[in-house]
Amino acid sequence: MCDFLPADKGKEQEEGTAFRPRFDKDGLVTAVACDWQTREVLMLAFMNAEALKLTIDTGKAHYWSRSRRAIWLKGETSGNVQIVRDIRTDCDQDAIVMMVEIQGDQASCHTGRVSCFYRSIKRTKDGSYALNFDERPPRFDPQKVYDQS
Amino acid sequence: MCDFLPADKGKEQEEGTAFRPRFDKDGLVTAVACDWQTREVLMLAFMNAEALKLTIDTGKAHYWSRSRRAIWLKGETSGNVQIVRDIRTDCDQDAIVMMVEIQGDQASCHTGRVSCFYRSIKRTKDGSYALNFDERPPRFDPQKVYDQS
Repeated sequence: MCDFLPADKGKEQEEGTAFRPRFDKDGLVTAVACDWQTREVLMLAFMNAEALKLTIDTGKAHYWSRSRRAIWLKGETSGNVQIVRDIRTDCDQDAIVMMVEIQGDQASCHTGRVSCFYRSIKRTKDGSYALNFDERPPRFDPQKVYDQS
Repeated sequence: MCDFLPADKGKEQEEGTAFRPRFDKDGLVTAVACDWQTREVLMLAFMNAEALKLTIDTGKAHYWSRSRRAIWLKGETSGNVQIVRDIRTDCDQDAIVMMVEIQGDQASCHTGRVSCFYRSIKRTKDGSYALNFDERPPRFDPQKVYDQS
């Protein structure tokens, strides 16, 4: 199943008005979801052709779970559905950026946090690398949301 | 060459303060660069361990070019170097988001545009998909910048 045109090269791909998503060897494009108001990057995941089509057609973000090998409606369990306000592709059309409005708890990470990117990488004095958490607490308790079944 | 700790699982990976980047089977993590002031997503590319280490240690974004199979200092040719103001990883530590200050023409796309994501995907009345360009003109002429050699 693919309703999309095949990927092209050069100018047609970069300067054209035809959507020609370039899926990788696993049939996936990378997708980044950002908050439509703050523009903060919320999460990064993957879409196959079906997830991409469902996302555009329904206006709700769908991804491909590489571990479960299944289409995944974001928020199906947690209620944190992502309503797509804008969806874009990049110059060579192998990546997607969406501006989304989150429903439910307004969190996108399965840990309960707004964004999956809640830790900054810092170089320490001894030359190793460490992570600093940002100060925002989780917006839901993942044990309550995901462990009920 | 890898100065990073090996990836772990579960809580240690998601709630720990140790940086344990999870490289994929090709030895890469996905990296997203955002404008540090507007938060706009500028580009999406890949880093191997060396590019990631160079990025953190020098404060300038380095990527791995999958086509050229080489480390790539962003802006080396165009002058549009990306100064890293913040660099983060996500819950399972297989993706990177950076807030960057762009030098030179303040563009990140090789087409001369601010961002690689200059086209929105729209569903047309006949059920196909098309791309709408945003209104911002390119900030440099790629032919002048890249075709001099």
